[in-house]
Amino acid sequence: MDIDAIVDNERFRQQISFLIEVDKIKNVIRKTRNFDNKKFENDAEHAWHLCMFAIILSEYANEKLDIVKILKMVLIHDLVEIDTGDTLVYDVNTVEKGRKENECAERLFGSLPDDQYIELMRIWEEFEARITPESKFAHAIDRLEPVMQNYVDDGFTWKQHSITADKVYNVNRKIQDGSRYLWEFAKRIIDESVASGNLLKE
Amino acid sequence: MDIDAIVDNERFRQQISFLIEVDKIKNVIRKTRNFDNKKFENDAEHAWHLCMFAIILSEYANEKLDIVKILKMVLIHDLVEIDTGDTLVYDVNTVEKGRKENECAERLFGSLPDDQYIELMRIWEEFEARITPESKFAHAIDRLEPVMQNYVDDGFTWKQHSITADKVYNVNRKIQDGSRYLWEFAKRIIDESVASGNLLKE
Repeated sequence: MDIDAIVDNERFRQQISFLIEVDKIKNVIRKTRNFDNKKFENDAEHAWHLCMFAIILSEYANEKLDIVKILKMVLIHDLVEIDTGDTLVYDVNTVEKGRKENECAERLFGSLPDDQYIELMRIWEEFEARITPESKFAHAIDRLEPVMQNYVDDGFTWKQHSITADKVYNVNRKIQDGSRYLWEFAKRIIDESVASGNLLKE
Repeated sequence: MDIDAIVDNERFRQQISFLIEVDKIKNVIRKTRNFDNKKFENDAEHAWHLCMFAIILSEYANEKLDIVKILKMVLIHDLVEIDTGDTLVYDVNTVEKGRKENECAERLFGSLPDDQYIELMRIWEEFEARITPESKFAHAIDRLEPVMQNYVDDGFTWKQHSITADKVYNVNRKIQDGSRYLWEFAKRIIDESVASGNLLKE
Protein backbone atom coordinates (compact mmCIF):
# COMPACT_ATOMS: atom_id res chain seq x y z
CA MET A 1 0.00 0.00 0.00
CA ASP A 2 1.25 3.47 -0.85
CA ILE A 3 1.33 5.65 2.24
CA ASP A 4 1.48 8.94 0.32
CA ALA A 5 -2.13 8.46 -0.73
CA ILE A 6 -3.48 8.93 2.79
CA VAL A 7 -1.44 12.02 3.69
CA ASP A 8 -3.04 15.33 2.76
CA ASN A 9 -0.51 17.76 4.24
CA GLU A 10 2.48 18.33 1.91
CA ARG A 11 5.04 18.98 4.65
CA PHE A 12 4.02 15.81 6.52
CA ARG A 13 4.00 13.83 3.23
CA GLN A 14 7.61 14.85 2.55
CA GLN A 15 8.64 13.82 6.06
CA ILE A 16 6.92 10.43 5.95
CA SER A 17 8.31 9.70 2.47
CA PHE A 18 11.82 10.51 3.71
CA LEU A 19 11.43 8.21 6.72
CA ILE A 20 10.42 5.36 4.41
CA GLU A 21 13.13 6.11 1.82
CA VAL A 22 15.98 6.05 4.37
CA ASP A 23 14.95 2.50 5.30
CA LYS A 24 17.19 1.51 2.35
CA ILE A 25 20.23 2.13 4.52
CA LYS A 26 19.45 -1.27 6.06
CA ASN A 27 20.48 -2.80 2.68
CA VAL A 28 23.95 -1.24 2.74
CA ILE A 29 26.28 -3.97 3.93
CA ARG A 30 29.66 -3.12 5.44
CA LYS A 31 32.96 -4.97 5.20
CA THR A 32 33.21 -5.80 8.93
CA ARG A 33 31.17 -8.27 10.96
CA ASN A 34 29.16 -7.70 14.13
CA PHE A 35 30.91 -8.51 17.41
CA ASP A 36 28.40 -11.13 18.46
CA ASN A 37 26.61 -12.80 15.55
CA LYS A 38 29.39 -12.45 12.96
CA LYS A 39 26.95 -11.27 10.30
CA PHE A 40 28.20 -8.42 8.14
CA GLU A 41 27.01 -5.22 9.78
CA ASN A 42 24.63 -2.97 7.85
CA ASP A 43 24.70 0.81 7.93
CA ALA A 44 21.64 1.16 10.20
CA GLU A 45 23.17 -1.16 12.81
CA HIS A 46 26.48 0.69 12.42
CA ALA A 47 24.86 4.11 12.94
CA TRP A 48 23.05 2.82 16.04
CA HIS A 49 26.26 1.41 17.44
CA LEU A 50 28.19 4.64 16.82
CA CYS A 51 25.52 6.52 18.77
CA MET A 52 26.20 4.20 21.70
CA PHE A 53 29.95 4.84 21.28
CA ALA A 54 29.24 8.60 21.30
CA ILE A 55 27.13 8.39 24.46
CA ILE A 56 29.53 6.17 26.38
CA LEU A 57 32.90 7.48 25.18
CA SER A 58 32.37 11.22 24.68
CA GLU A 59 34.47 11.98 27.78
CA TYR A 60 37.55 10.90 25.79
CA ALA A 61 37.07 13.53 23.06
CA ASN A 62 39.89 16.08 22.75
CA GLU A 63 37.35 18.90 22.87
CA LYS A 64 33.96 19.28 24.54
CA LEU A 65 31.13 17.93 22.37
CA ASP A 66 27.59 19.02 21.62
CA ILE A 67 25.86 15.67 22.15
CA VAL A 68 22.73 16.42 20.08
CA LYS A 69 24.88 17.43 17.16
CA ILE A 70 27.12 14.39 17.25
CA LEU A 71 24.16 12.01 17.61
CA LYS A 72 22.39 13.57 14.61
CA MET A 73 25.67 13.51 12.68
CA VAL A 74 26.31 9.87 13.39
CA LEU A 75 22.69 8.90 12.63
CA ILE A 76 22.79 10.40 9.13
CA HIS A 77 26.51 10.19 8.20
CA ASP A 78 26.15 7.14 5.95
CA LEU A 79 22.75 7.88 4.39
CA VAL A 80 24.50 8.87 1.14
CA GLU A 81 25.60 5.24 0.80
CA ILE A 82 22.01 4.39 -0.12
CA ASP A 83 23.02 5.38 -3.67
CA THR A 84 26.77 4.64 -3.62
CA GLY A 85 27.12 1.56 -1.39
CA ASP A 86 29.82 0.95 1.21
CA THR A 87 33.50 1.12 0.16
CA LEU A 88 36.40 -0.56 1.90
CA VAL A 89 38.06 2.24 3.88
CA TYR A 90 41.49 1.08 2.64
CA ASP A 91 40.51 1.63 -1.00
CA VAL A 92 41.09 5.05 -2.51
CA ASN A 93 38.00 7.24 -2.44
CA THR A 94 37.54 8.60 -5.93
CA VAL A 95 36.32 12.03 -6.94
CA GLU A 96 33.51 10.16 -8.68
CA LYS A 97 32.36 8.64 -5.37
CA GLY A 98 32.39 12.07 -3.70
CA ARG A 99 30.29 13.46 -6.52
CA LYS A 100 27.74 10.64 -6.22
CA GLU A 101 27.54 11.09 -2.44
CA ASN A 102 26.82 14.78 -2.91
CA GLU A 103 24.09 13.95 -5.40
CA CYS A 104 22.58 11.46 -2.99
CA ALA A 105 22.66 13.99 -0.13
CA GLU A 106 20.86 16.49 -2.36
CA ARG A 107 18.32 13.87 -3.40
CA LEU A 108 17.60 12.61 0.12
CA PHE A 109 17.80 15.75 2.24
CA GLY A 110 16.34 17.77 -0.65
CA SER A 111 13.15 15.72 -0.41
CA LEU A 112 12.49 17.16 3.07
CA PRO A 113 10.84 20.50 3.91
CA ASP A 114 13.36 23.35 3.43
CA ASP A 115 14.18 23.91 7.12
CA GLN A 116 14.98 20.21 7.65
CA TYR A 117 16.85 20.00 4.34
CA ILE A 118 19.09 22.87 5.43
CA GLU A 119 19.67 21.43 8.90
CA LEU A 120 20.58 17.90 7.83
CA MET A 121 22.61 19.01 4.80
CA ARG A 122 24.67 21.28 7.04
CA ILE A 123 25.29 18.51 9.56
CA TRP A 124 26.34 16.11 6.80
CA GLU A 125 28.67 18.69 5.22
CA GLU A 126 30.11 19.41 8.67
CA PHE A 127 30.79 15.69 9.12
CA GLU A 128 32.54 15.51 5.75
CA ALA A 129 34.67 18.62 6.40
CA ARG A 130 36.20 17.21 9.63
CA ILE A 131 36.87 20.60 11.18
CA THR A 132 34.57 20.84 14.21
CA PRO A 133 35.03 18.81 17.42
CA GLU A 134 31.87 16.78 16.71
CA SER A 135 32.93 15.84 13.18
CA LYS A 136 36.43 14.87 14.31
CA PHE A 137 35.05 12.68 17.10
CA ALA A 138 32.42 11.17 14.78
CA HIS A 139 35.21 10.16 12.39
CA ALA A 140 37.23 8.80 15.33
CA ILE A 141 34.49 6.40 16.50
CA ASP A 142 33.56 5.62 12.87
CA ARG A 143 37.14 4.28 12.56
CA LEU A 144 37.44 2.77 16.04
CA GLU A 145 34.38 0.51 15.75
CA PRO A 146 35.67 -1.53 12.74
CA VAL A 147 39.16 -1.74 14.26
CA MET A 148 37.61 -3.23 17.41
CA GLN A 149 35.39 -5.51 15.30
CA ASN A 150 38.42 -6.80 13.42
CA TYR A 151 40.32 -7.38 16.63
CA VAL A 152 37.48 -9.41 18.16
CA ASP A 153 37.01 -11.17 14.78
CA ASP A 154 40.68 -12.27 14.61
CA GLY A 155 41.46 -9.83 11.79
CA PHE A 156 38.71 -11.09 9.50
CA THR A 157 38.42 -8.10 7.11
CA TRP A 158 42.16 -7.37 7.20
CA LYS A 159 42.94 -10.95 6.21
CA GLN A 160 40.19 -11.08 3.59
CA HIS A 161 41.55 -8.00 1.82
CA SER A 162 45.27 -8.56 2.61
CA ILE A 163 45.50 -5.30 4.54
CA THR A 164 48.86 -4.64 6.22
CA ALA A 165 49.57 -2.91 9.53
CA ASP A 166 51.05 0.21 7.90
CA LYS A 167 47.78 0.75 6.01
CA VAL A 168 45.75 0.23 9.19
CA TYR A 169 47.96 2.75 10.97
CA ASN A 170 47.76 5.32 8.21
CA VAL A 171 44.03 5.15 7.64
CA ASN A 172 43.14 5.13 11.33
CA ARG A 173 45.62 7.66 12.69
CA LYS A 174 42.99 10.36 12.15
CA ILE A 175 41.30 8.90 15.26
CA GLN A 176 43.76 11.11 17.21
CA ASP A 177 42.19 14.25 15.71
CA GLY A 178 39.01 13.41 17.63
CA SER A 179 40.51 11.62 20.60
CA ARG A 180 44.14 11.07 21.51
CA TYR A 181 42.99 8.61 24.18
CA LEU A 182 41.07 6.41 21.73
CA TRP A 183 43.97 6.49 19.26
CA GLU A 184 46.29 5.09 21.97
CA PHE A 185 43.76 2.31 22.45
CA ALA A 186 43.50 1.68 18.68
CA LYS A 187 47.29 1.50 18.43
CA ARG A 188 47.38 -1.17 21.16
CA ILE A 189 44.78 -3.15 19.19
CA ILE A 190 46.83 -2.87 16.00
CA ASP A 191 50.11 -3.84 17.72
CA GLU A 192 48.45 -6.76 19.49
CA SER A 193 46.93 -7.93 16.20
CA VAL A 194 50.33 -7.91 14.53
CA ALA A 195 51.85 -9.76 17.52
CA SER A 196 49.16 -12.45 17.38
CA GLY A 197 49.47 -12.89 13.60
CA ASN A 198 45.98 -11.56 12.79
CA LEU A 199 47.38 -8.56 10.93
CA LEU A 200 50.27 -8.73 8.46
CA LYS A 201 53.19 -6.46 9.41
CA GLU A 202 53.89 -5.66 5.73
CA MET B 1 40.66 -12.00 20.58
CA ASP B 2 39.54 -10.75 23.97
CA ILE B 3 39.62 -6.97 24.08
CA ASP B 4 39.59 -6.76 27.89
CA ALA B 5 43.15 -8.04 27.98
CA ILE B 6 44.59 -4.90 26.38
CA VAL B 7 42.69 -2.35 28.49
CA ASP B 8 44.40 -1.35 31.73
CA ASN B 9 41.99 1.34 32.99
CA GLU B 10 39.00 -0.16 34.84
CA ARG B 11 36.51 2.58 33.89
CA PHE B 12 37.44 2.32 30.20
CA ARG B 13 37.31 -1.50 30.38
CA GLN B 14 33.74 -1.36 31.69
CA GLN B 15 32.74 1.02 28.90
CA ILE B 16 34.33 -1.03 26.10
CA SER B 17 32.82 -4.26 27.48
CA PHE B 18 29.39 -2.64 27.54
CA LEU B 19 29.75 -1.44 23.93
CA ILE B 20 30.59 -4.98 22.83
CA GLU B 21 27.86 -6.60 24.97
CA VAL B 22 25.08 -4.40 23.56
CA ASP B 23 25.97 -5.65 20.07
CA LYS B 24 23.64 -8.56 20.94
CA ILE B 25 20.67 -6.29 20.30
CA LYS B 26 21.33 -6.95 16.60
CA ASN B 27 20.18 -10.54 17.23
CA VAL B 28 16.77 -9.51 18.57
CA ILE B 29 14.36 -9.94 15.69
CA ARG B 30 11.07 -8.06 15.62
CA LYS B 31 7.68 -9.16 14.30
CA THR B 32 7.46 -6.53 11.53
CA ARG B 33 9.47 -6.31 8.32
CA ASN B 34 11.57 -3.45 6.97
CA PHE B 35 9.84 -1.11 4.51
CA ASP B 36 12.26 -1.80 1.69
CA ASN B 37 13.94 -5.19 1.87
CA LYS B 38 11.13 -7.03 3.68
CA LYS B 39 13.54 -8.68 6.10
CA PHE B 40 12.37 -8.84 9.69
CA GLU B 41 13.71 -5.76 11.42
CA ASN B 42 16.15 -6.19 14.30
CA ASP B 43 16.23 -4.02 17.41
CA ALA B 44 19.34 -2.05 16.37
CA GLU B 45 17.78 -1.13 13.02
CA HIS B 46 14.55 -0.29 14.84
CA ALA B 47 16.31 1.99 17.35
CA TRP B 48 18.14 3.76 14.52
CA HIS B 49 14.90 4.26 12.64
CA LEU B 50 13.10 5.61 15.70
CA CYS B 51 15.88 8.18 16.12
CA MET B 52 15.16 9.34 12.57
CA PHE B 53 11.44 9.50 13.43
CA ALA B 54 12.29 11.57 16.51
CA ILE B 55 14.46 14.00 14.54
CA ILE B 56 12.03 14.45 11.67
CA LEU B 57 8.68 14.32 13.50
CA SER B 58 9.36 15.98 16.88
CA GLU B 59 7.34 19.05 15.82
CA TYR B 60 4.18 16.93 16.12
CA ALA B 61 4.71 16.10 19.80
CA ASN B 62 2.00 17.37 22.14
CA GLU B 63 4.65 18.93 24.35
CA LYS B 64 8.08 20.40 23.68
CA LEU B 65 10.80 17.74 23.71
CA ASP B 66 14.37 17.59 24.97
CA ILE B 67 15.99 16.10 21.83
CA VAL B 68 19.09 14.66 23.54
CA LYS B 69 16.92 12.90 26.06
CA ILE B 70 14.56 11.36 23.53
CA LEU B 71 17.42 10.22 21.31
CA LYS B 72 19.20 8.53 24.22
CA MET B 73 15.88 7.02 25.32
CA VAL B 74 15.10 5.61 21.91
CA LEU B 75 18.66 4.30 21.45
CA ILE B 76 18.55 2.24 24.66
CA HIS B 77 14.83 1.50 25.07
CA ASP B 78 14.99 -2.08 23.79
CA LEU B 79 18.38 -3.11 25.20
CA VAL B 80 16.60 -5.16 27.86
CA GLU B 81 15.34 -7.43 25.07
CA ILE B 82 18.87 -8.82 24.79
CA ASP B 83 17.82 -11.16 27.62
CA THR B 84 14.05 -11.38 27.04
CA GLY B 85 13.62 -11.23 23.25
CA ASP B 86 10.95 -9.30 21.36
CA THR B 87 7.28 -9.93 22.15
CA LEU B 88 4.32 -9.33 19.85
CA VAL B 89 2.83 -6.08 21.11
CA TYR B 90 -0.65 -7.61 20.91
CA ASP B 91 0.29 -10.34 23.38
CA VAL B 92 -0.19 -9.67 27.06
CA ASN B 93 2.98 -8.51 28.78
CA THR B 94 3.40 -10.64 31.85
CA VAL B 95 4.73 -9.63 35.24
CA GLU B 96 7.40 -12.22 34.59
CA LYS B 97 8.60 -10.38 31.47
CA GLY B 98 8.74 -7.09 33.38
CA ARG B 99 10.82 -8.73 36.08
CA LYS B 100 13.26 -10.15 33.51
CA GLU B 101 13.56 -6.80 31.77
CA ASN B 102 14.43 -5.15 35.06
CA GLU B 103 17.05 -7.79 35.74
CA CYS B 104 18.54 -7.24 32.28
CA ALA B 105 18.61 -3.46 32.79
CA GLU B 106 20.48 -3.99 36.08
CA ARG B 107 22.88 -6.42 34.44
CA LEU B 108 23.63 -4.21 31.40
CA PHE B 109 23.60 -0.70 32.83
CA GLY B 110 25.07 -2.02 36.09
CA SER B 111 28.19 -3.11 34.19
CA LEU B 112 28.98 0.56 33.43
CA PRO B 113 30.78 3.05 35.69
CA ASP B 114 28.38 4.36 38.37
CA ASP B 115 27.65 7.74 36.78
CA GLN B 116 26.72 6.16 33.44
CA TYR B 117 24.77 3.38 35.16
CA ILE B 118 22.67 5.97 36.98
CA GLU B 119 22.11 8.06 33.87
CA LEU B 120 21.04 5.23 31.55
CA MET B 121 19.00 3.43 34.21
CA ARG B 122 17.07 6.66 34.89
CA ILE B 123 16.40 7.20 31.19
CA TRP B 124 15.20 3.62 30.74
CA GLU B 125 12.95 3.84 33.83
CA GLU B 126 11.60 7.16 32.55
CA PHE B 127 10.79 5.49 29.23
CA GLU B 128 8.96 2.66 30.99
CA ALA B 129 6.97 5.02 33.26
CA ARG B 130 5.44 6.98 30.32
CA ILE B 131 4.95 10.19 32.30
CA THR B 132 7.33 12.73 30.75
CA PRO B 133 6.85 14.29 27.27
CA GLU B 134 9.90 12.45 25.91
CA SER B 135 8.73 9.04 27.13
CA LYS B 136 5.23 9.57 25.75
CA PHE B 137 6.56 10.61 22.36
CA ALA B 138 9.08 7.75 22.35
CA HIS B 139 6.20 5.31 22.89
CA ALA B 140 4.19 7.07 20.17
CA ILE B 141 6.85 6.59 17.49
CA ASP B 142 7.67 3.12 18.83
CA ARG B 143 4.06 2.24 17.97
CA LEU B 144 3.75 4.30 14.78
CA GLU B 145 6.69 2.68 13.00
CA PRO B 146 5.27 -0.89 12.99
CA VAL B 147 1.79 0.39 12.06
CA MET B 148 3.36 2.11 9.03
CA GLN B 149 5.44 -0.99 8.27
CA ASN B 150 2.32 -3.16 8.31
CA TYR B 151 0.46 -0.74 6.08
CA VAL B 152 3.25 -0.72 3.48
CA ASP B 153 3.59 -4.51 3.89
CA ASP B 154 -0.13 -5.14 3.14
CA GLY B 155 -0.90 -6.06 6.75
CA PHE B 156 1.77 -8.77 6.94
CA THR B 157 2.13 -9.12 10.74
CA TRP B 158 -1.57 -8.49 11.38
CA LYS B 159 -2.52 -11.29 8.97
CA GLN B 160 0.17 -13.64 10.26
CA HIS B 161 -1.10 -13.35 13.84
CA SER B 162 -4.81 -12.85 13.01
CA ILE B 163 -4.87 -9.42 14.66
CA THR B 164 -8.17 -7.53 14.33
CA ALA B 165 -8.77 -3.78 13.93
CA ASP B 166 -10.12 -3.33 17.47
CA LYS B 167 -6.89 -4.74 18.90
CA VAL B 168 -4.81 -2.48 16.66
CA TYR B 169 -6.87 0.50 17.81
CA ASN B 170 -6.62 -0.37 21.48
CA VAL B 171 -2.91 -1.09 21.58
CA ASN B 172 -1.95 1.93 19.48
CA ARG B 173 -4.27 4.58 20.89
CA LYS B 174 -1.55 5.52 23.37
CA ILE B 175 0.12 7.22 20.40
CA GLN B 176 -2.17 10.16 21.19
CA ASP B 177 -0.53 10.62 24.60
CA GLY B 178 2.64 11.61 22.77
CA SER B 179 1.12 13.14 19.65
CA ARG B 180 -2.50 13.74 18.74
CA TYR B 181 -1.38 14.54 15.20
CA LEU B 182 0.38 11.20 14.72
CA TRP B 183 -2.56 9.33 16.22
CA GLU B 184 -4.87 10.88 13.61
CA PHE B 185 -2.45 9.62 10.97
CA ALA B 186 -2.30 6.14 12.53
CA LYS B 187 -6.11 5.99 12.59
CA ARG B 188 -6.24 6.76 8.87
CA ILE B 189 -3.77 3.93 8.27
CA ILE B 190 -5.88 1.52 10.32
CA ASP B 191 -9.15 2.55 8.62
CA GLU B 192 -7.59 2.31 5.18
CA SER B 193 -6.18 -1.13 6.00
CA VAL B 194 -9.62 -2.36 7.03
CA ALA B 195 -11.13 -0.87 3.86
CA SER B 196 -8.56 -2.58 1.65
CA GLY B 197 -8.96 -5.93 3.38
CA ASN B 198 -5.45 -6.03 4.87
CA LEU B 199 -6.78 -5.84 8.42
CA LEU B 200 -9.71 -7.89 9.73
CA LYS B 201 -12.49 -5.73 11.14
CA GLU B 202 -13.23 -8.29 13.85
